[in-house]
Amino acid sequence: MFELGVVYRNITRADRAAADQLARYGSATVHEAMGRVGLLKPYMRPIYAGAQVSGTAVTVLLHPGDNWMMHVVAEQIQPGDIVVAAITAECTDGYFGDLLATSFMARGARALVIDAGVRDVKTLTEMGFPVWSKAISAKGTIKATLGSVNVPVVCAGALVTPGDVVVADDDGVVVVPAALAVATADAAARREANEGDKRAKLASGVLGLDMYKMREPLAAAGLKYID
Amino acid sequence: MFELGVVYRNITRADRAAADQLARYGSATVHEAMGRVGLLKPYMRPIYAGAQVSGTAVTVLLHPGDNWMMHVVAEQIQPGDIVVAAITAECTDGYFGDLLATSFMARGARALVIDAGVRDVKTLTEMGFPVWSKAISAKGTIKATLGSVNVPVVCAGALVTPGDVVVADDDGVVVVPAALAVATADAAARREANEGDKRAKLASGVLGLDMYKMREPLAAAGLKYID
Amino acid sequence: MFELGVVYRNITRADRAAADQLARYGSATVHEAMGRVGLLKPYMRPIYAGAQVSGTAVTVLLHPGDNWMMHVVAEQIQPGDIVVAAITAECTDGYFGDLLATSFMARGARALVIDAGVRDVKTLTEMGFPVWSKAISAKGTIKATLGSVNVPVVCAGALVTPGDVVVADDDGVVVVPAALAVATADAAARREANEGDKRAKLASGVLGLDMYKMREPLAAAGLKYID
Amino acid sequence: MFELGVVYRNITRADRAAADQLARYGSATVHEAMGRVGLLKPYMRPIYAGAQVSGTAVTVLLHPGDNWMMHVVAEQIQPGDIVVAAITAECTDGYFGDLLATSFMARGARALVIDAGVRDVKTLTEMGFPVWSKAISAKGTIKATLGSVNVPVVCAGALVTPGDVVVADDDGVVVVPAALAVATADAAARREANEGDKRAKLASGVLGLDMYKMREPLAAAGLKYID
Amino acid sequence: MFELGVVYRNITRADRAAADQLARYGSATVHEAMGRVGLLKPYMRPIYAGAQVSGTAVTVLLHPGDNWMMHVVAEQIQPGDIVVAAITAECTDGYFGDLLATSFMARGARALVIDAGVRDVKTLTEMGFPVWSKAISAKGTIKATLGSVNVPVVCAGALVTPGDVVVADDDGVVVVPAALAVATADAAARREANEGDKRAKLASGVLGLDMYKMREPLAAAGLKYID
Amino acid sequence: MFELGVVYRNITRADRAAADQLARYGSATVHEAMGRVGLLKPYMRPIYAGAQVSGTAVTVLLHPGDNWMMHVVAEQIQPGDIVVAAITAECTDGYFGDLLATSFMARGARALVIDAGVRDVKTLTEMGFPVWSKAISAKGTIKATLGSVNVPVVCAGALVTPGDVVVADDDGVVVVPAALAVATADAAARREANEGDKRAKLASGVLGLDMYKMREPLAAAGLKYID
Repeated sequence: MFELGVVYRNITRADRAAADQLARYGSATVHEAMGRVGLLKPYMRPIYAGAQVSGTAVTVLLHPGDNWMMHVVAEQIQPGDIVVAAITAECTDGYFGDLLATSFMARGARALVIDAGVRDVKTLTEMGFPVWSKAISAKGTIKATLGSVNVPVVCAGALVTPGDVVVADDDGVVVVPAALAVATADAAARREANEGDKRAKLASGVLGLDMYKMREPLAAAGLKYID
Repeated sequence: MFELGVVYRNITRADRAAADQLARYGSATVHEAMGRVGLLKPYMRPIYAGAQVSGTAVTVLLHPGDNWMMHVVAEQIQPGDIVVAAITAECTDGYFGDLLATSFMARGARALVIDAGVRDVKTLTEMGFPVWSKAISAKGTIKATLGSVNVPVVCAGALVTPGDVVVADDDGVVVVPAALAVATADAAARREANEGDKRAKLASGVLGLDMYKMREPLAAAGLKYID
Repeated sequence: MFELGVVYRNITRADRAAADQLARYGSATVHEAMGRVGLLKPYMRPIYAGAQVSGTAVTVLLHPGDNWMMHVVAEQIQPGDIVVAAITAECTDGYFGDLLATSFMARGARALVIDAGVRDVKTLTEMGFPVWSKAISAKGTIKATLGSVNVPVVCAGALVTPGDVVVADDDGVVVVPAALAVATADAAARREANEGDKRAKLASGVLGLDMYKMREPLAAAGLKYID
Repeated sequence: MFELGVVYRNITRADRAAADQLARYGSATVHEAMGRVGLLKPYMRPIYAGAQVSGTAVTVLLHPGDNWMMHVVAEQIQPGDIVVAAITAECTDGYFGDLLATSFMARGARALVIDAGVRDVKTLTEMGFPVWSKAISAKGTIKATLGSVNVPVVCAGALVTPGDVVVADDDGVVVVPAALAVATADAAARREANEGDKRAKLASGVLGLDMYKMREPLAAAGLKYID
Repeated sequence: MFELGVVYRNITRADRAAADQLARYGSATVHEAMGRVGLLKPYMRPIYAGAQVSGTAVTVLLHPGDNWMMHVVAEQIQPGDIVVAAITAECTDGYFGDLLATSFMARGARALVIDAGVRDVKTLTEMGFPVWSKAISAKGTIKATLGSVNVPVVCAGALVTPGDVVVADDDGVVVVPAALAVATADAAARREANEGDKRAKLASGVLGLDMYKMREPLAAAGLKYID
Repeated sequence: MFELGVVYRNITRADRAAADQLARYGSATVHEAMGRVGLLKPYMRPIYAGAQVSGTAVTVLLHPGDNWMMHVVAEQIQPGDIVVAAITAECTDGYFGDLLATSFMARGARALVIDAGVRDVKTLTEMGFPVWSKAISAKGTIKATLGSVNVPVVCAGALVTPGDVVVADDDGVVVVPAALAVATADAAARREANEGDKRAKLASGVLGLDMYKMREPLAAAGLKYID
């Protein structure tokens, strides 16, 4: 933690297949598969609806109002990565725009997750480069202070270690520790397996009360029906 | 108020025709027709733009982080209802997703209004099931504590009694007490009747200052023009 | 400042060509061209995505919950203007809807920027009248208290003098003092001139680190790479 | 609900002894005695620390930025009452200051609970008149629009019916329906009865794990200890 | 506006007697005397209760996370001044602590008003140096970027021109344009003159309804009493 | 990370002398000594002013609205510890009151830092048990779900590993990794060493501009003085 002015070039990325596969389950299923943990705060919102991605985290720690390290992290991106940017204090400035996005895309980045603001969102949307952020702001930044790249960071309330898997969609962002990626992908797959079946039953009018056998525990807890 | 662990099966729903008709006027006109009251807080936002609905309220009172009663309320839904969910404390967890939505739609629900979070918003949008909520969050909930169904609740700052009419659109959500539904629908209809006429005049360049005869009261209030 | 009950009919608008031209650069480039100043707070959001406008400000100062002066300012609109509405206290009420928008459009207004709420956003979107606001709310207002028109106002944290240029897009809203409009347009044009070139280089894989010659100053600041 | 321009002069106040007695238990114990319900939102804070009161509610419904009805409600105050003020929209203006407080105290009011702002807080503190509010603001209000007095209101997320008991202290504000006042006071008294005993045990080093016999259910739920 | 890297050494301060006198009336009375305008946002709170000051504004414009210019503004302070600090973007960092306060006090400053964070609040309280701020935060700042001193700034939603009078107390902060200082002091004095009289009447049980002769206009507006 | 239902009984606490010593420097100095990192979000506020503590962290991870694990963590407290409580989602409920505080004090805890609400704050203040929290709320919690004790947690935006040093005062809360405790204490001591000297100089009227030799770099950056 807390090293400033340091760039780690070699990080251990999570299992690639698992990192790629997790996108399909989405953030809700993945965090359930981990035991309802790992979510970033719900103020992290996508700049446009419909994107659903997963990838391996490269991290960057920035100071408020200073995006110098965004250029440093760009060099560390490998295809399949998602950049996770944390700030040492609360800030809504626009750290990232279409030029940096062009560079990130050229390096193979799939998305940016940033606990601050971004700008050029119209162009980013046209480019199809998804960003989850705390704010949208035209406010530019300076390049004066060192942060770090590929150190563990806390982003929007969640610890992200370089190489972890990040899963993001319209519901939010979840981080899966690299060591749990394969097991989480398996657990998520199992959760999804019988969803279609459940959906069909519920669509036919079967109640969750019956499908999940809740009537007895509800009665045991004291639920009373009054006509 | 404040009964926990109770489900009221028989509620008196507002006049069906009025409940159906109110959607067409929208939340702004309806709350004006009631005297500028009845609105839920403006933090209640639709998960997708363009939906405009009205229906009769079935209510559910939930504890933070616990959606057990959502399955209980599902059974009490009748076609034309809108589920109104209140929480006993502030919470942004995702109480509702695509499976519950499938069940609610199968029962004939038109929408959900919830003073907390929802998830699976991409799927909900594809399904065309509108939700007005305080947050979007992938965070799941547990099923451990009893709340109540069809008791009066305070949702996002407004009292909702089971059977009241709920009107929701891109501008927000308004609740019309069942006893006032017909009168409110009439008043809203009257407000709308001459809107087309006003719009035409304004579009032609007539000023509201003249159309509403405001120049004299403005001068009386002391308004001064300076060249 | 602080004159209440006054309407200034003659204001000096910024250079028309510059006022029209600034839209094309967007809020991010324009505020950079001014030295990273002039932005309204990032809570000011467009009611629909994609609009990008600039125009000359006519201003209106309103009291909370009272939109009487919106009708007064309508008369002062000239083609190419953007109405900037400030409130003397925090308020999220819906001061503006489709009827006022019809009137504003008939007068030639290009947009509304308001540090409060608006309503009828579905209709406003269909009409193509863009609004940047702090909130969306169905809550109506009364017409009881005088404010002022075309006095300097503070809107969402920025001073706006009548005649200033307002530039608004998906990234936010920036105000350019009238006296700086031409110079700012020139500076913005220069900033844009070599953006295409930079974008092409970055897309080809050149890093910002090299393109902006950052490696040396980063090393001088003490940045360390660890393998 | 929703009657505007109406003052109810005769309300049925909760049992006086229960209304007076509830102050001693405080908001936390009282809301527990009701089943963890009845609390106003936690943003309601006292203007000074240490006050702990209970009393019968007289209610007032106000419009944003307009405190006219505060003078109307003053006349309806009886000794032992607490004024509960709700606003039809979000507002932080200062509706209440030392002059109104002087009048309220002369009428026998014990406190004010208001979902908006107050001012003159230094003088109010010196006078010893406690207020729980959403904001402190010097911003004054006008007197132009009718609200109502002694109608049911929603204040900071809780329904308050005239005559209900309000209990307020440093932890927040809770409302007890008049019909439940006596039973709630009894239940609260029972909760308090063995608190001294528990406190002594815990102070001596006994753990809640043992005192509440939690070890077994924790183990049953799967809790694991790792050395 | 918007000059960066500039320090104005000669500013015209408001009339000294008026600037000194305004403290006694407090922010509520002063803003009323100006017509309910001039207040900073209510999120500006004192770091300790009870301070009530007025003085002439020296202003400083800072960048987020950078307090370099605080040292520059220190030199421009004259006895009787209040430093007003604005930030070009939203920031809660701690720009100011006990060392700067020692320097400000040595120069004769009466207070600091800052739209960001401060730290060392325990020591500042012991020193008796009052601060009104948006946040309290231990987060330090850097010294890398130029802002300006004694330019007009927007601080917490209010325009402050160097030399204006700032009045701050437990209710908030109000700014009085220098040209209006004397007239405002006179108007405030008149408002206060008969407050003692009013207070005595209200304390004796006279109602505001009668003292302000509100019964007739309330009836005219349609107020109904129901027994 | 992310283990649920687990209690680690053996943790490695930071050097005791350093953990005890850090309190004297306060959160501002300590986070500076680490390079301006390690702070919890500024929304974490003390329930009463004036407390200044440091200690070794024992951590607890809780679910929203459920404080069961607070009893489990109590057993793991050793004299000199500070309990750090994180929640898996946003919650303002009152997880902690005077009974738990009695137990924590009996175990030797010095403070609680919790990213949620607390209650009984009047009694906690009288007991002299300091708490830093996000909210004060009378809302009670249930005991139904397992969390974990002494796992790494993210609390208010900062990673806290069991055994780390926590320093808290009126300015906020900072966490020092156990491995850095001694070095940080040394660095903080050095920072403090010449503060008295600086303070004396500034109090005598010497400007920071001169004491820190800023005039030259400011001129080099382009600062201009205008008379």
